[in-house]
Amino acid sequence: MPKQTIKIAIAGPRGRMGTEAVKLVEDTAHFELVGAIDRTYNGKKLSEVLPCGSNAVIYTDIHECFSETAPDVLIDLTTPEIGKLHTKIALEHGVRPVVGTTGFSESDLDELMQLTDEKGIGAIIAPNFALGAVLMMKFSQMAANYFTDVEIIEQHHDQKLDAPSGTALKTAEMISAVREAKQQGHPDEKEILPGARGAEQNGIRLHSVRLPGLIAHQEVLFGGDGQTLKIRHDSYNRASFMSGVKLAVEQVMKIDQLVYGLENIID
Amino acid sequence: MPKQTIKIAIAGPRGRMGTEAVKLVEDTAHFELVGAIDRTYNGKKLSEVLPCGSNAVIYTDIHECFSETAPDVLIDLTTPEIGKLHTKIALEHGVRPVVGTTGFSESDLDELMQLTDEKGIGAIIAPNFALGAVLMMKFSQMAANYFTDVEIIEQHHDQKLDAPSGTALKTAEMISAVREAKQQGHPDEKEILPGARGAEQNGIRLHSVRLPGLIAHQEVLFGGDGQTLKIRHDSYNRASFMSGVKLAVEQVMKIDQLVYGLENIID
Amino acid sequence: MPKQTIKIAIAGPRGRMGTEAVKLVEDTAHFELVGAIDRTYNGKKLSEVLPCGSNAVIYTDIHECFSETAPDVLIDLTTPEIGKLHTKIALEHGVRPVVGTTGFSESDLDELMQLTDEKGIGAIIAPNFALGAVLMMKFSQMAANYFTDVEIIEQHHDQKLDAPSGTALKTAEMISAVREAKQQGHPDEKEILPGARGAEQNGIRLHSVRLPGLIAHQEVLFGGDGQTLKIRHDSYNRASFMSGVKLAVEQVMKIDQLVYGLENIID
Amino acid sequence: MPKQTIKIAIAGPRGRMGTEAVKLVEDTAHFELVGAIDRTYNGKKLSEVLPCGSNAVIYTDIHECFSETAPDVLIDLTTPEIGKLHTKIALEHGVRPVVGTTGFSESDLDELMQLTDEKGIGAIIAPNFALGAVLMMKFSQMAANYFTDVEIIEQHHDQKLDAPSGTALKTAEMISAVREAKQQGHPDEKEILPGARGAEQNGIRLHSVRLPGLIAHQEVLFGGDGQTLKIRHDSYNRASFMSGVKLAVEQVMKIDQLVYGLENIID
Repeated sequence: MPKQTIKIAIAGPRGRMGTEAVKLVEDTAHFELVGAIDRTYNGKKLSEVLPCGSNAVIYTDIHECFSETAPDVLIDLTTPEIGKLHTKIALEHGVRPVVGTTGFSESDLDELMQLTDEKGIGAIIAPNFALGAVLMMKFSQMAANYFTDVEIIEQHHDQKLDAPSGTALKTAEMISAVREAKQQGHPDEKEILPGARGAEQNGIRLHSVRLPGLIAHQEVLFGGDGQTLKIRHDSYNRASFMSGVKLAVEQVMKIDQLVYGLENIID
Repeated sequence: MPKQTIKIAIAGPRGRMGTEAVKLVEDTAHFELVGAIDRTYNGKKLSEVLPCGSNAVIYTDIHECFSETAPDVLIDLTTPEIGKLHTKIALEHGVRPVVGTTGFSESDLDELMQLTDEKGIGAIIAPNFALGAVLMMKFSQMAANYFTDVEIIEQHHDQKLDAPSGTALKTAEMISAVREAKQQGHPDEKEILPGARGAEQNGIRLHSVRLPGLIAHQEVLFGGDGQTLKIRHDSYNRASFMSGVKLAVEQVMKIDQLVYGLENIID
Repeated sequence: MPKQTIKIAIAGPRGRMGTEAVKLVEDTAHFELVGAIDRTYNGKKLSEVLPCGSNAVIYTDIHECFSETAPDVLIDLTTPEIGKLHTKIALEHGVRPVVGTTGFSESDLDELMQLTDEKGIGAIIAPNFALGAVLMMKFSQMAANYFTDVEIIEQHHDQKLDAPSGTALKTAEMISAVREAKQQGHPDEKEILPGARGAEQNGIRLHSVRLPGLIAHQEVLFGGDGQTLKIRHDSYNRASFMSGVKLAVEQVMKIDQLVYGLENIID
Repeated sequence: MPKQTIKIAIAGPRGRMGTEAVKLVEDTAHFELVGAIDRTYNGKKLSEVLPCGSNAVIYTDIHECFSETAPDVLIDLTTPEIGKLHTKIALEHGVRPVVGTTGFSESDLDELMQLTDEKGIGAIIAPNFALGAVLMMKFSQMAANYFTDVEIIEQHHDQKLDAPSGTALKTAEMISAVREAKQQGHPDEKEILPGARGAEQNGIRLHSVRLPGLIAHQEVLFGGDGQTLKIRHDSYNRASFMSGVKLAVEQVMKIDQLVYGLENIID
């Protein structure tokens, strides 16, 4: 049975993620790009401002876009501030939002949840669309039910400023949610050189490697009697986010409430 | 709240797995070893025939063992033929079996399922107690819903005769159960040296490495746009099976039917 | 002590490798780009035909380039046929060639060796400029003196047609040169699925993994009593070749003969 | 051509390493065990005090052992204090020592060097006999000539007290000996959680992972433009030391001076 075509509008089509999203929609048989929302280029076709084959029209007014093109789904890849506004407007128009921006507060989410309940339609907000990373985090949380000892080793290029990475912190947080805090390692262990045993969060050790050549990698290593279990994600480029966007678009059509985090639509 | 003590009998206490199981029960605060079933040494204490501290008595008659020691759970680590018999007798006595042998046929399982239904008690039969390996297989199956391309690389010591390993075949089977068969790699790819692309099962490629020094390792590698996801299990010794036995003993007390395969009690 | 400036001409500056080489020379303090050799654009500046800051002049006549710009080194990144011709002309002009093309026959090399001897200057021909890959091969050869059992697992994107990769074959060849051919694995091992044990060359097993998302990776795994040694190279993009080109330019100034293969200037 | 038989005496045959060494000598066709030196059991055969097949006689007096059995090589696996004494006596008797103990001071080594020069025979003192670990360190040092950025990740069971491991520190030291000290990572990088970036020695970052199940593992990871090079050693049990002992015995027969560290007899 052929899949039902999903009509899509993209907000932020000229950004780095937006460009990939336009390509994704063009390359997916049952996706149809019906419109785009941008700050400029009102009335132009996408193919006039981007190297793509789409004749979808650009709107600077999101209401007009929704009225004239009647999309099923809005893919929003703008900024946190604009993303929030777009999400609300989309829901009011009965358009299901798939949003890749972060920065939603608890009260923002409460408000949106009320809106999805009223309208009876789905919405997905995902701080991380890299499906492999989301699976790594989900599997790590599951494994933590059976292995009480775990360390996280994340590896990035040496232009990254913060250590540990956001994904490593989020992984530790998800693991901590299911296991009792536990001081790992030998109680009498000592660091001959300070920092050797890494950073610590709820007893979980985190190690950050920074080297030229690396891109974005993470290993979650569990140890138990006579065995270890390793879950590793390697992200090589932005294309890695698009399988997550695709999944979210397909899933948002099937749900009737707000979902925060891709891990919650994976089973 | 302290956990309720579980009374346990072990069949096959002097075997390689049995010895580990005796140790497990001794080392677990809420497990109590009440009896053992063996072909010989009737009436002796375990500590008289094994380097352990247990005063549990050995029985050559399993019925007598059950009547006199009233265990909650039977851990059976004997042979397939004897294991089948023991499982049935245990259920008839209202003792919940945790069985580590393979070789149960469909009709064996049907018969046991009927028995557990009648008695309203649980039973767990697990061909593989290595919890990490079971998680690896389960996660691989879950990931296959999102990544259509996967290869399996298993690595064992060079005394292993069969390639691929049973775990690799089982992993491929579990993945095949959730994804459409797919011929992977480039349609025009060619092997300059035969065998380079490994074995193939439902389009999944399997590679078997055999080297001295290796023990038992497996990687399941998924690839998608711009990213890869790797799940790896390393098993170093038989102790790795005991966390699975422990989990099964705890879970068999909570269920009221037959479960085949540790992956089905993991969530 | 500041390093002596090396004057460089690049042949093939607009190709994929050539573009990277122009960038390399611009970014290296003691390298100076004095000229370029191209099929077209005679007399133009490089900055007029490439997004770069170099005012080096393009020549369609290599003799003229050498006479007018007097380079110390020619970096040739053209085709095998043209590369051969350029190498010879460079040597005749007393310019030291660093050549990245393959396809030199034994007799080609003999002829060039005679020329370098006559002129008393160095020349480096390198089929592979990825320094990490060259080190991996060199270390593998060294390790094979101490570990007799080894398998090679190479992993590439699924658009690659040939299996095993050229680097894997070259690695096996370099290992075979130092160890006695040995049939690895158990003498009675059997493939339940054909191909599981991979391809075989002089007893060495080679495994080729092909998945979307992968780029170019290789592991060489040695096994011995109670231990394994793994050497792995990951190549993420063409920039990885430039450290090898840089090394070759620096080394070609110090030698007075022909060297084939970057592994022979590494110690 | 069959290899010449090497006559060997072992000091400390009943220790953990000594037992393995006895097995090694018995299992190697061109090695012959002619005597053993022990604190007790004078005059007994080895097979009477150890589960082995050797009829070599045990001596409590090392001079008597050397006079009566005339070994070519002494394998000493005793304590630092006794090992030093044995080494000296062996050289005086013209027996070539292979010593696995640490704790030799500079002046100890000077004295022994003088002795080997006088006698014109070889001696090998090796703090680490795990051949794979020694190769890892040697290759890391070589690679550091070409890759300026490196981090070390060592992984051990959680009963280990010190972090980083001695092997990690030694690796960092060997790398530091060939590269200029360099502060790695982004100059403005910051640790959100302290310790995330690991320990630091001469600008090299070291990370220590401690988990149950792990044995003894180390990765040395080099990064450069567009590529990474990883060298990993996994040690699973004490048998891993014996290939190094074997190599040392063979090499000590070919040299005529003192060598400290197995890395110096590898080429």
